[in-house]
Amino acid sequence: MKKNWFDEKIKKYSSIGGYKKPDLLKDAVKLDSNENYVIPKQFQNDILLSAKKKSDVREYPLGGVERLIDMISKFIKIPSSMIGIGNGSDQILDLILSNFASKETKVLTSNPTFGFFEERCKLYSIPLIAIPFSNTMKLDIKDFIKQSSDAEILYLDSPNNPTGFQFPKNELQKLVKSFEGLVIIDEAYGEFGDYSLANMVKTHENLIVVQTLSKSFGLAGLRLGYFIANKKFTDTFMNVLQYPYPLSTITIEAGISALEKANLMNDAVNIIKTERKRIIETLRKYDSFEVFDSKANFVLFDAHGSYKRVFAALAEQGISIRKLGKIGNHEGCLRVSIGTKEMNSKFLLAIRDLLG
Amino acid sequence: MKKNWFDEKIKKYSSIGGYKKPDLLKDAVKLDSNENYVIPKQFQNDILLSAKKKSDVREYPLGGVERLIDMISKFIKIPSSMIGIGNGSDQILDLILSNFASKETKVLTSNPTFGFFEERCKLYSIPLIAIPFSNTMKLDIKDFIKQSSDAEILYLDSPNNPTGFQFPKNELQKLVKSFEGLVIIDEAYGEFGDYSLANMVKTHENLIVVQTLSKSFGLAGLRLGYFIANKKFTDTFMNVLQYPYPLSTITIEAGISALEKANLMNDAVNIIKTERKRIIETLRKYDSFEVFDSKANFVLFDAHGSYKRVFAALAEQGISIRKLGKIGNHEGCLRVSIGTKEMNSKFLLAIRDLLG
Repeated sequence: MKKNWFDEKIKKYSSIGGYKKPDLLKDAVKLDSNENYVIPKQFQNDILLSAKKKSDVREYPLGGVERLIDMISKFIKIPSSMIGIGNGSDQILDLILSNFASKETKVLTSNPTFGFFEERCKLYSIPLIAIPFSNTMKLDIKDFIKQSSDAEILYLDSPNNPTGFQFPKNELQKLVKSFEGLVIIDEAYGEFGDYSLANMVKTHENLIVVQTLSKSFGLAGLRLGYFIANKKFTDTFMNVLQYPYPLSTITIEAGISALEKANLMNDAVNIIKTERKRIIETLRKYDSFEVFDSKANFVLFDAHGSYKRVFAALAEQGISIRKLGKIGNHEGCLRVSIGTKEMNSKFLLAIRDLLG
Repeated sequence: MKKNWFDEKIKKYSSIGGYKKPDLLKDAVKLDSNENYVIPKQFQNDILLSAKKKSDVREYPLGGVERLIDMISKFIKIPSSMIGIGNGSDQILDLILSNFASKETKVLTSNPTFGFFEERCKLYSIPLIAIPFSNTMKLDIKDFIKQSSDAEILYLDSPNNPTGFQFPKNELQKLVKSFEGLVIIDEAYGEFGDYSLANMVKTHENLIVVQTLSKSFGLAGLRLGYFIANKKFTDTFMNVLQYPYPLSTITIEAGISALEKANLMNDAVNIIKTERKRIIETLRKYDSFEVFDSKANFVLFDAHGSYKRVFAALAEQGISIRKLGKIGNHEGCLRVSIGTKEMNSKFLLAIRDLLG
């Protein structure tokens, strides 16, 4: 009888399905996961070598997280007492959801929103109010303000994944100010966008801004996310909700070293923004595509009826992008990450060969 | 009003306090966290160098966890489909608790038990039935069997931290067989003990055995834990409960490389067992100490009224052990991890200078 209870739980969870990772294509031009290949390989070589030198992995990383937080503080110019870390920003979002939300807590967000966030809400049976994007892949702030009072938590990725949309700064500020519950602004792609709301945390106790080293610093493999929030929340998160040792010593030391070289990140972001413009403009030359604006390191486009054919033809040539299919009225959505000039040219050439 | 809800939650959590880490003593003889200094520094140098070579941390570690699990499978001779991983065994325990336990689920365990596990139960308001250790720091299996029907989950660390106690194999097997709910056997210190229950998973669907590379492999800083369970649970855990990318690329690759050199781990474990005997026998020469048997890589002893003085005198000489204080009727418990021969001799000499 008691075993049954356990089996029932497993059955319930297994029916959820979980977050779908892309297929592993060997030696592919990998434009499917919004990774950053523009940042030089030398950068990771240097930070990993430095991390190895400074680490004794036989020991628990006592004091390491505190040094990392001090370095993040210098980088974003916000006091250490308002900064917390996690095993990727995934883990930060998950700990917030599992400890602050429940079946009784409605979360206001957009549709689509970050896939992992949506999956965790499903897992915890947290009801979502999801505002759909318009036909031009934009959101209307008024829709959010209208629904504000029905929700306890507001979650927005800014810029949004997978559309690349970011609200004008004054509009998002207005929404945060008017929202009475907990606000989570996920700035995983923030460095590619127009602004950050991090400083607003100083005056808004209900705001948590989440950032990561995965995208702009090109360190997805290190699993290092952080957040900015009021001191009370930060304290409680780090001392009670977070694990005693959430990050490996290598991730801590490599993260510190990466932040010391933030100028390389800035250079990479600038190149990516230029390349984004080129990709958008080139794709827009094809009548069969509808290409949406982007403030992130990827571009979303609707290839309509031919999206499966485009995806398969690219895959055949070893170019991996993300097949999303239906978003709103757009039936054939594809998302391409912005890689190095060379990678992007390969992608654009393959498109030309297919459609040109 | 809605903000209030958020503040109340923070207040509630902050009152829990959380897991207490040891103080950071600079350049100390570190015998406070059950770390493994016997495994040579060359070992970690080799595995980290190999990991660095094989990693591109710009990418998400797609497929890495699967390769790691295949390697664990070879090492423990259990099919890959029955193995899952986590960001330290901490995270495995936490995901099981947060998804399978609640206020309505009673957990049967010992008192004391693993501190982190206890803290997470507090966080989720999960009620504990905690069977106390006897005066000789042993547990009576009959007490557990008696209470079995009152609990939905059984959690035991085997060997136990901080006592070092491990049930005789046939007794623990009997308990697992008779328990009708979910059984979690935490073998973080398993390699230092007399046996593992991992193989019992093949015939017992309600059993999860948790293991780690932190202790026997001396890789606490890598944060790499794993579990063995039936295929259905393992599938659901890895595809739904676990994050898409719970481990850094470096942890994955270093873990694979470490498992390839498991013979070095075995050598270290043998040295630690010999040193454990020496420490127990030497400490037992002092009438003022009561020294308990241990099947783990640490030794618990009651220094009675003088435990604070012993702890402070050691700390003054740069030797850091764990001050636990009251456990049952024992008022002055101290726990010393087993280090290298040299570290242990320093500890024993300092004790002799103090009490001899």
